[in-house]
Amino acid sequence: MATKKKSQFKPDPKKEWLHEIIFEADTRIGRIFDIVLLIIIAASVIVVALESMENLHIRFSKLFLILEWTFTIIFTLEYALRLYCVYEPWKYAKSFFGIIDLLATLPTYLSLVFTGSHYFLVIRVLRLMRIFRIFKLGHFMKEGFIIVEALKASRIKITVFLIFVILMTIIIGSLMYLLEGGQNPSFSSIPRSVYWAIVTLTTVGYGDITPVTPLGQLLSAVVMIMGYAILAVPTGIVSAEFIQKNKKVYSTNTQACRFCGREGHDNNAQYCKFCGNILNEPEVD
Amino acid sequence: MATKKKSQFKPDPKKEWLHEIIFEADTRIGRIFDIVLLIIIAASVIVVALESMENLHIRFSKLFLILEWTFTIIFTLEYALRLYCVYEPWKYAKSFFGIIDLLATLPTYLSLVFTGSHYFLVIRVLRLMRIFRIFKLGHFMKEGFIIVEALKASRIKITVFLIFVILMTIIIGSLMYLLEGGQNPSFSSIPRSVYWAIVTLTTVGYGDITPVTPLGQLLSAVVMIMGYAILAVPTGIVSAEFIQKNKKVYSTNTQACRFCGREGHDNNAQYCKFCGNILNEPEVD
Amino acid sequence: MATKKKSQFKPDPKKEWLHEIIFEADTRIGRIFDIVLLIIIAASVIVVALESMENLHIRFSKLFLILEWTFTIIFTLEYALRLYCVYEPWKYAKSFFGIIDLLATLPTYLSLVFTGSHYFLVIRVLRLMRIFRIFKLGHFMKEGFIIVEALKASRIKITVFLIFVILMTIIIGSLMYLLEGGQNPSFSSIPRSVYWAIVTLTTVGYGDITPVTPLGQLLSAVVMIMGYAILAVPTGIVSAEFIQKNKKVYSTNTQACRFCGREGHDNNAQYCKFCGNILNEPEVD
Amino acid sequence: MATKKKSQFKPDPKKEWLHEIIFEADTRIGRIFDIVLLIIIAASVIVVALESMENLHIRFSKLFLILEWTFTIIFTLEYALRLYCVYEPWKYAKSFFGIIDLLATLPTYLSLVFTGSHYFLVIRVLRLMRIFRIFKLGHFMKEGFIIVEALKASRIKITVFLIFVILMTIIIGSLMYLLEGGQNPSFSSIPRSVYWAIVTLTTVGYGDITPVTPLGQLLSAVVMIMGYAILAVPTGIVSAEFIQKNKKVYSTNTQACRFCGREGHDNNAQYCKFCGNILNEPEVD
Repeated sequence: MATKKKSQFKPDPKKEWLHEIIFEADTRIGRIFDIVLLIIIAASVIVVALESMENLHIRFSKLFLILEWTFTIIFTLEYALRLYCVYEPWKYAKSFFGIIDLLATLPTYLSLVFTGSHYFLVIRVLRLMRIFRIFKLGHFMKEGFIIVEALKASRIKITVFLIFVILMTIIIGSLMYLLEGGQNPSFSSIPRSVYWAIVTLTTVGYGDITPVTPLGQLLSAVVMIMGYAILAVPTGIVSAEFIQKNKKVYSTNTQACRFCGREGHDNNAQYCKFCGNILNEPEVD
Repeated sequence: MATKKKSQFKPDPKKEWLHEIIFEADTRIGRIFDIVLLIIIAASVIVVALESMENLHIRFSKLFLILEWTFTIIFTLEYALRLYCVYEPWKYAKSFFGIIDLLATLPTYLSLVFTGSHYFLVIRVLRLMRIFRIFKLGHFMKEGFIIVEALKASRIKITVFLIFVILMTIIIGSLMYLLEGGQNPSFSSIPRSVYWAIVTLTTVGYGDITPVTPLGQLLSAVVMIMGYAILAVPTGIVSAEFIQKNKKVYSTNTQACRFCGREGHDNNAQYCKFCGNILNEPEVD
Repeated sequence: MATKKKSQFKPDPKKEWLHEIIFEADTRIGRIFDIVLLIIIAASVIVVALESMENLHIRFSKLFLILEWTFTIIFTLEYALRLYCVYEPWKYAKSFFGIIDLLATLPTYLSLVFTGSHYFLVIRVLRLMRIFRIFKLGHFMKEGFIIVEALKASRIKITVFLIFVILMTIIIGSLMYLLEGGQNPSFSSIPRSVYWAIVTLTTVGYGDITPVTPLGQLLSAVVMIMGYAILAVPTGIVSAEFIQKNKKVYSTNTQACRFCGREGHDNNAQYCKFCGNILNEPEVD
Repeated sequence: MATKKKSQFKPDPKKEWLHEIIFEADTRIGRIFDIVLLIIIAASVIVVALESMENLHIRFSKLFLILEWTFTIIFTLEYALRLYCVYEPWKYAKSFFGIIDLLATLPTYLSLVFTGSHYFLVIRVLRLMRIFRIFKLGHFMKEGFIIVEALKASRIKITVFLIFVILMTIIIGSLMYLLEGGQNPSFSSIPRSVYWAIVTLTTVGYGDITPVTPLGQLLSAVVMIMGYAILAVPTGIVSAEFIQKNKKVYSTNTQACRFCGREGHDNNAQYCKFCGNILNEPEVD
């Protein structure tokens, strides 16, 4: 981020060196730092998960406390270093990862003030989000961005579709409440029936609420068959976008022949397929 | 709707003004009207849902009654205004939204005549459909229409497929009735077994009816594996249509022929495919 | 079928007339015949289904018997007429619908000889398949054939995939038997565990067999996540085929320009998009 | 494998003859060998599965023991022959099928040393993997490789997606633990809640763990709706790859340039895109 303004001021070699280690993963030491950090983050998440198990919580409560504070102190130091080595700390602090880095340390400190065990837990969970930093590693990011882009392109269609699905579940749920409500204690209210409709339409099908009247089972069957066809819609939307994306990347470049001016050449084409003249070398990144 | 005949009669400025507010969302006041209306509709749906919950129904029955009548009166007034400000009220009344607008008010009035609590509820549910008016807002409609169009294009294929699935569930259900019927009270009749087959083939899988005999479980396994492959069909159908739709948008350019004025030319077309005259060089970004 | 040999012998007008009514749906009387037949078939299926319900079976056993024999006699007469009015009865009798038509009548007669109630039921179920005759009606057949063709084109890929899935369920099921077998009576044998694996991998998820040990739940979670990715394969295969099919139908015809010989013209193209000369009128069926 | 070095040494006719029978399926005897072997493998897998059933295990324990040893001896002999008839036995032994062939015989011998019944079972399961040898048969392999290739091409995208899904299930699971933990013994720990999140997001939906609080059910509903949209992502990724694969097969012709001999030309190409020389007119059927 801050590197863009490099030309305007003298770089601080200490900050640069730290930045290279903490933020980048190009050097050997930088890569080691990232891997170690990832292991610590994973370990801290596992500790939170294990602590939530009754029998372990009782037996190792002290160990968990020590580990938790150790992790918190490590992450706090790391957060401080990150703030120190960037040229515009405020920008980093407001960024997505900056906020998550902060939230990963706060809960343990807050647990000193608010002692209710319930609040403890709520706070701990947020720490899990620090696992997102994994994404910083590796060039997997690039492929991930293709997914994100495809989802962005189908954003509105998916939203419209989901609104439609939610409306449908409200109507179906209400109908089921009328059909089953009296005889079946599972369909005791419209909200519960709507919950059932969502469980059914998404084909999750827990079975905690199931119709018992013949009419209710008939409507359920219709809903499932309908859900079968409807399930195809988001898949179709997203598939179409991925194919669009793939086509751009794989099949052709945007280069026009210098002789006949025609386009649509394959990435591996060396000669124009329309007039036979030599093409420019396509620049591939 | 009525605006098409503008040239034939003098427009009524009062009606025009009201129409602008109630039907359109282009002006500031029109947008506020729509948003307020949406909030009221959502609130009324939530009230119906909450009322269906036993414990809330007992404690707040009076409040619910007041709210229900308030909402009904608001919607009745709104419906009257809508009828007033359009030039052809009958056309509006018969339109999709016109019927829903009416059905959103009727139930409460009908509850005065038919006092059976059961009938009350049946009627109330229809009011939920008023939430569909949300779709009138925003340009989300356009993307929604693409979905509708893709589904329309695959209408017949999906229907044939669903008929096939229903026939298959009848046969599978009957077979399971024969295999499980004697030993398993869950498969007590063919309709129940068909219900099971639908639950299984659509991968909902409640688990309220499950096979217990080895042979029944073997058939179930075959049905599931089959369902796995079959699930791909509607998705394939709809995906193909979405891609078709996308391709139309992307692969043809927006250029109109200078001679015949027709559009829909491929990016690599040099001559108009309708009149044979030469096209402009397509500008590709 | 037999009409192909028309030129070789004098057509029998009585047979021709009957054939028109029974086999074709082009004339008014032929259409009425088909619709009436469909209703009778549907009714007979519903009767079989209702008869399987304990309480109805006891109360209306006589009525069911009468209806069953009535339907059987109607279908027997219809089958005889079909055999009579085709020129090559043996060919019809061996055809798919010929066999189903026969199987639709046999069970009731067989029930006179074999009186075991169990055998009765097994036989009755086959009668349900007569509902397939519905497909004979309407031009829905054509779109249905596109589905069948797309599935045929992906036949081998789907088979390979399903074999792979079955092998995987055997391995996963065996692993789960080892992990859960001792502590969880649900995983009492490898076949049961394989059944569980199929229920899980296909995302049906009845919940009649569920892991209880932490290790079993971990493996289940891995299986589900894997199943998530695997579910995409058949859909991808079938989608690709549908798109292939669609492209052929919609975008281009096989016509080559008479002047420049180039192909790939749209169905609505009147002039060659490469040389500007007029195209032949494309023959569209 | 070894056949590549044929020119360097005198082939051993006995080895060649055995190799033809055991490794190839081109000759009649070779095909019979493969089919018999497949039947034996299937039988041995079925025996392992049946042995795991309590009641059969007790009644036929002796028979199972004999069958198991018979199969083991057959497979051992077969493994020895395979090692004998290839020119580079070590290469075969280290290959995928070589290792599986060995693992298919070892467990029974190991069961003589380690008598704990539990360990027996763990080992037996690996024998099931010998069923993979089926894949050696038939040209189904080719279509199978297209699937593998499509999956390979989408490898990174699928991995990124699955990491994202796993992270999401951890966060969702933790949230549910906070919402339901106190009131619902099913959500007794974060790992269990994460297990629930995976069961729900993948739409398996066992129903062994289900939310009971209104807030928990609301979050579940959101998770399901989200899962609905998310399910589209891997399908979209894989579909796009299959279409890519299909397009390569269909849209390019099989023609090789007469000058440079390279292939992969588009159907509308007139000049070789690699050397610029004129192509034959592509013959299109």
